[in-house]
Amino acid sequence: MNLPSKYLENAVEAFASLPGIGRRTALRLTLHLLKKDKGYVLNFAEAFKELILEVKSCKNCHNLSDQEVCSICLSPKRDSSLICVVEDIRDILAIESTQQYRGLYHVLGGLISPMDGVGPSDLTITHLEARLKEPEVSEVILALSATMEGDTTNFYLYRKLNPLGVKVSTIARGIGIGDELEFTDEITLGKSILNRLPFENSLTN
Amino acid sequence: MNLPSKYLENAVEAFASLPGIGRRTALRLTLHLLKKDKGYVLNFAEAFKELILEVKSCKNCHNLSDQEVCSICLSPKRDSSLICVVEDIRDILAIESTQQYRGLYHVLGGLISPMDGVGPSDLTITHLEARLKEPEVSEVILALSATMEGDTTNFYLYRKLNPLGVKVSTIARGIGIGDELEFTDEITLGKSILNRLPFENSLTN
Repeated sequence: MNLPSKYLENAVEAFASLPGIGRRTALRLTLHLLKKDKGYVLNFAEAFKELILEVKSCKNCHNLSDQEVCSICLSPKRDSSLICVVEDIRDILAIESTQQYRGLYHVLGGLISPMDGVGPSDLTITHLEARLKEPEVSEVILALSATMEGDTTNFYLYRKLNPLGVKVSTIARGIGIGDELEFTDEITLGKSILNRLPFENSLTN
Repeated sequence: MNLPSKYLENAVEAFASLPGIGRRTALRLTLHLLKKDKGYVLNFAEAFKELILEVKSCKNCHNLSDQEVCSICLSPKRDSSLICVVEDIRDILAIESTQQYRGLYHVLGGLISPMDGVGPSDLTITHLEARLKEPEVSEVILALSATMEGDTTNFYLYRKLNPLGVKVSTIARGIGIGDELEFTDEITLGKSILNRLPFENSLTN
C-alpha cells in the first residue's frame, strides 16, 4: 500500500506502531482525522506532546501525577499505615473505584516474569522496602493478579518484606460475587474452601 | 474512572475520540506511550500535526498529496483520456494495488445518501463535470461500491455525465475470483448471468 503523501504515511505509521492497531485500521483513523478541522487535530497532537512532557511518576508511590507527589500520597484523608502493592496504575484505578480502600499505594511497574526477562531489579521493590522502614507503616497488602507471574512476585515480596516486621497480607481469592458454584473452576473453588471465613466476617462487608 | 493527571486524561480523551476506540483501550494505548521514550512520543504527536498542516487535496482529482497536484495526475505515464470515479482515497489505493489501471482518478468524497444527509452538492460532482469537458477525456469509469448508496450515486452520475458526450462505464459485477457458485448470493449470480461475456474476453485478462 503506497500512500500518495509522506505525511499521510507518517501518521499511518504512528497509529500502526500502537499495540493492536494494524495498517488498515491506522489508515482509517488517519483519514478520520483528515476529515476533522485543523484545531481538533492540533489539539489531538498536543495531547500526546504534553503527556510525555508533563506527566510524572509520583516519587513516593510511582503512581502517575502532574506533580512530584500524587494526590493520593498528598491527601491527609488517606491512612498512611497501609500500603497496597499493585502492578500498574490501572490497578489503582480499579481499586479506587471500589471505594473500599483508604490507604496508600505502591506501583511495582510490572511483575516478575523470567519468560519476559523481567527480574526483581526491574521493579520498584528496593524503593518499597525503603518505604516500609518508615515507622508509621503497619501493613502491606499485596494486590497482584492471580496469575503465575503474580504468584511468583507475591512469593518473592513476602520473603523480602516479612523480615522487616510489617504485616504482609494478600487480597482474598475465591469465587466472584455473582458466580455460580457449578461453573467455578476447581482450583478457585478449592482455594475458597481452604480459605473459608467465619460467617460473621462475610456479613461485615 | 478518575485519572490522577489531567494530561493523562487529555491523552485518553484524544484516543477515545477516535472511531472504534473506547476509554479502556484509550487508557491502554496512553500507558503504552508513557512506557516509550520521549523522542518516540514527540514524533508520534508531530506526525498528526504535520498531517493536518501539510497534507493537501489534489486540486485536479481530490486525491491526497503533499503538493497542489498529486503524483498520479502529474505522471506522464498515466492515460489522461480515462477518469476513474471513486468514493474515497482508500479506493484509489485498492485499485492501484491491482496494477490493472493506468488512467486518472476523481475522488467524490462520499456517496449520495439521503439517510445520512449527503446530497450531490456535498460531493465533487460539479468539478468532475468540468474535468469531463476537457477534450482529451474519452471515458469515465464509475468504480463505486455495490451498495444502495453506490447504486444511487452511479445512477445520478450516469444521468449527469452521459449528455456530455463521454463514454460512461462501470466496473463489472459478478462472482468473485475464487468464489464457489453454490455459495454466491442469488442477486450477484443473476447479474453475472445477465452480464455474461464472450468467452474470448475472459481469456484476455
